[in-house]
Amino acid sequence: MTTHPTPGSAASSAAETAHPEQVVTALRAALGARVDTAASTLEAARADRSGHVSPGAPLAVVHAECVDDVQTTMRIASAHGTPVVVRGGGTGLAGAANAGPGQLVLSTARMNRLLEVRADDLLAVVEPGILNLALDEQLAPWGLWWAPDPASRDIATVGGNIATGAGGLLCAKYGVVRDAVLGVDLVLADGRLVRLGRRTVKGVSGLDLTSLVIGSEGQLGVIVGATLKLRPLVPGAACTLTATFAEVREAARAASAVTAAGVQPAIMELMDALSLASAHRLLGLPAPADGASQLTIQTDGPSGPEDAERIAELLRAAGGTVAITLDPDKGEQLLAVRRAMLPAVETLGTALIEDVAVPRSALADMFDEVARVEREYGVTIPTIAHAGDGNLHPTFVFAGPDVPPVVWEAAADLFRSALRLGGTLSGEHGIGLLKSRWLAEELGETQWELQREVLRVFDPAGILNPGKVFATEG
Amino acid sequence: MTTHPTPGSAASSAAETAHPEQVVTALRAALGARVDTAASTLEAARADRSGHVSPGAPLAVVHAECVDDVQTTMRIASAHGTPVVVRGGGTGLAGAANAGPGQLVLSTARMNRLLEVRADDLLAVVEPGILNLALDEQLAPWGLWWAPDPASRDIATVGGNIATGAGGLLCAKYGVVRDAVLGVDLVLADGRLVRLGRRTVKGVSGLDLTSLVIGSEGQLGVIVGATLKLRPLVPGAACTLTATFAEVREAARAASAVTAAGVQPAIMELMDALSLASAHRLLGLPAPADGASQLTIQTDGPSGPEDAERIAELLRAAGGTVAITLDPDKGEQLLAVRRAMLPAVETLGTALIEDVAVPRSALADMFDEVARVEREYGVTIPTIAHAGDGNLHPTFVFAGPDVPPVVWEAAADLFRSALRLGGTLSGEHGIGLLKSRWLAEELGETQWELQREVLRVFDPAGILNPGKVFATEG
Repeated sequence: MTTHPTPGSAASSAAETAHPEQVVTALRAALGARVDTAASTLEAARADRSGHVSPGAPLAVVHAECVDDVQTTMRIASAHGTPVVVRGGGTGLAGAANAGPGQLVLSTARMNRLLEVRADDLLAVVEPGILNLALDEQLAPWGLWWAPDPASRDIATVGGNIATGAGGLLCAKYGVVRDAVLGVDLVLADGRLVRLGRRTVKGVSGLDLTSLVIGSEGQLGVIVGATLKLRPLVPGAACTLTATFAEVREAARAASAVTAAGVQPAIMELMDALSLASAHRLLGLPAPADGASQLTIQTDGPSGPEDAERIAELLRAAGGTVAITLDPDKGEQLLAVRRAMLPAVETLGTALIEDVAVPRSALADMFDEVARVEREYGVTIPTIAHAGDGNLHPTFVFAGPDVPPVVWEAAADLFRSALRLGGTLSGEHGIGLLKSRWLAEELGETQWELQREVLRVFDPAGILNPGKVFATEG
Repeated sequence: MTTHPTPGSAASSAAETAHPEQVVTALRAALGARVDTAASTLEAARADRSGHVSPGAPLAVVHAECVDDVQTTMRIASAHGTPVVVRGGGTGLAGAANAGPGQLVLSTARMNRLLEVRADDLLAVVEPGILNLALDEQLAPWGLWWAPDPASRDIATVGGNIATGAGGLLCAKYGVVRDAVLGVDLVLADGRLVRLGRRTVKGVSGLDLTSLVIGSEGQLGVIVGATLKLRPLVPGAACTLTATFAEVREAARAASAVTAAGVQPAIMELMDALSLASAHRLLGLPAPADGASQLTIQTDGPSGPEDAERIAELLRAAGGTVAITLDPDKGEQLLAVRRAMLPAVETLGTALIEDVAVPRSALADMFDEVARVEREYGVTIPTIAHAGDGNLHPTFVFAGPDVPPVVWEAAADLFRSALRLGGTLSGEHGIGLLKSRWLAEELGETQWELQREVLRVFDPAGILNPGKVFATEG
């Protein structure tokens, strides 16, 4: 873990506890051993996977085991005006779950049960701490799955997925978290429980507060349960293709051509030259041609083989050298190169993985912007993209544990490039701590202020995850 | 048009204009002939297609022609504290767009242009007044379409679709409005413009106010533009099936079996015995067997024919007599029976079309509830359902122009049955004026109050569509 000096790194801002020991005493009286103040527990709660670490340890971690524990914690925190940071698997990449001095951590990781599966309604009811992987393992015997598949799916919680509005590799075809949640049970800052959403496919009674909670990064309430929209398992084997191009712009344009042709791959990943070369080196494969970039594509379902053939034609027409396989093992070998990207890049130095999205047609232009920023700031930014949905992960690589100021300057330039191209600051990682100072640029001042006022309705005292997302400093 | 005595029928509640003529004078000075006070225009704005009519004529109808017109109108209305009812095609079925004494109507029907189509991004930018049908006609040459297909699609506006969170026949496979909107431009009550959402497939920067606006029934702001998510036209011809069952419960169970088997029809409509018999009579077809109920199903896309065969097997196994055709003309003939439902029911008397949704597995139980309510209240309720998504339209039939009190009592009983079965008051028509008195029962008091507070953030003075959805009277 490294300490990245970041914009707006104040760990708490709104309410600050006058006598922090009192709130811990009150929590212990109510919740006993579920209140954890072990140094190692507190230390772990300072950081997520972004690399950012808070300035110091939080007061305590409450390991909630049921909804009532959460309500009790929030009532006590409200009474003491103590900030609360909700935490699931701690796999976030924007610092949203990092907790610091004077703050409580409310972990829902132990609330990890699958409560109900209805194959006839294609829905499941879960507690928030269940991991994506564990959920899908339990759903498989029913012939069902939940589509969101963040790279951290083995260790990420569904509650964290919802709080982040997570994505993954399969989004372009199977949707993001927003498309896969019917309802959310939410404990408000003052401890009251509301049940948002419904169990029906359609429903338009009142405002859609469920959607408002998705991606709200722990600032509207504590997610204590969710009703998830499931899909039947996709029949048949997947077809896997790779297409190698002389340079990344060509690969990006080829990906756009696939989308424009109306074919829908399940996965369409793009690796730029540095990512590809590093992955080949890590896996002991022959070095790719200098500057070569690669698309890795999977199609599935009844039309999978025909889709793959059609996509292969489009990629060849776009100048790609195509390999295609229906064999699952060979398909896995082709995907392994893409999967090796992050460890491969980490052999080059410390990696700060970023996350912007642009309209799919602007993918090639955004890769040009990455190259420009690399040149102008003298930084190295191997980049992959979920090319099917225009979501790029430019990954800044540098020496030593701390993010150098020039990297933040370069990142800021890149964020603004994404906005100029009609894009967004974050496709799937969220704003958290690391990007809050650019949020108003994307939303505009009026909307930014409106969103803050909506937060205040849910949390008038500002005790839920203060200093994140809408932080004014920076 | 009929005058239905309804619950909570106060036409305006919050701000009332002291000198109504002043606001019209101010509007005329700013907008000239776009301010319309012709008696016929005002009369038409009293009602939507629900049958409910407001107690009297509104002050004026402003025919906005651009965003600036809308901002000007809202600034003037705010300054005078005059309530504003936004109106598109006036095709709503819950009274949400009905305007009464002391209120202004802001029509966005003239803002009806398709501003931009991007095939490579699968998106379109539109003004709110464009009709679904006109949009799809203009998108067809691009090989694209917008999926929401309310029955009123020939005369309904996209802005109205968004404000209602509309559905239609194709929802189970192709989604509702909520799944088909990337961004909304919204003029707030005070005239400020905010651009919500984005042009990217993924995006998690800040709160999802776009989703909050969808289905908000004119209470958060005026929709002045939208960025829509498009789909490539589905290739190939549709396959059409009908399956006749001895009684409606059998048909409902058969529909649930199709969903549970993981096959996804594009359309799956269920007609109960009275609907079916009335439609046959209207079309001059031989009478169906006594008590017989029918499913009408369409499959499409590359796996359409195989899906149809599989569904036919499931329906036969469930006791259905199945007819299946790949011929588009014969398919149209089969669907014509379903399409004739509403005119057929109107031959029986005045029709009040209702709209509840239940989890798909509860469809048969909900039909039992319809039968129980018919018996207990001595009312007639022919009912169809979008069986693929559990959305029923129980249609109360009665003599004369006014809804008899017993019909509202029966409807209330039916709404509560839907809630008991895990369902919702409205699948796709909205709450509007007609269902506001039951909303708190569905949401719970805490959530109902929370939603009202969120409204106040957008519209502190309560001038946007007051007396609807969250009205306290009733």
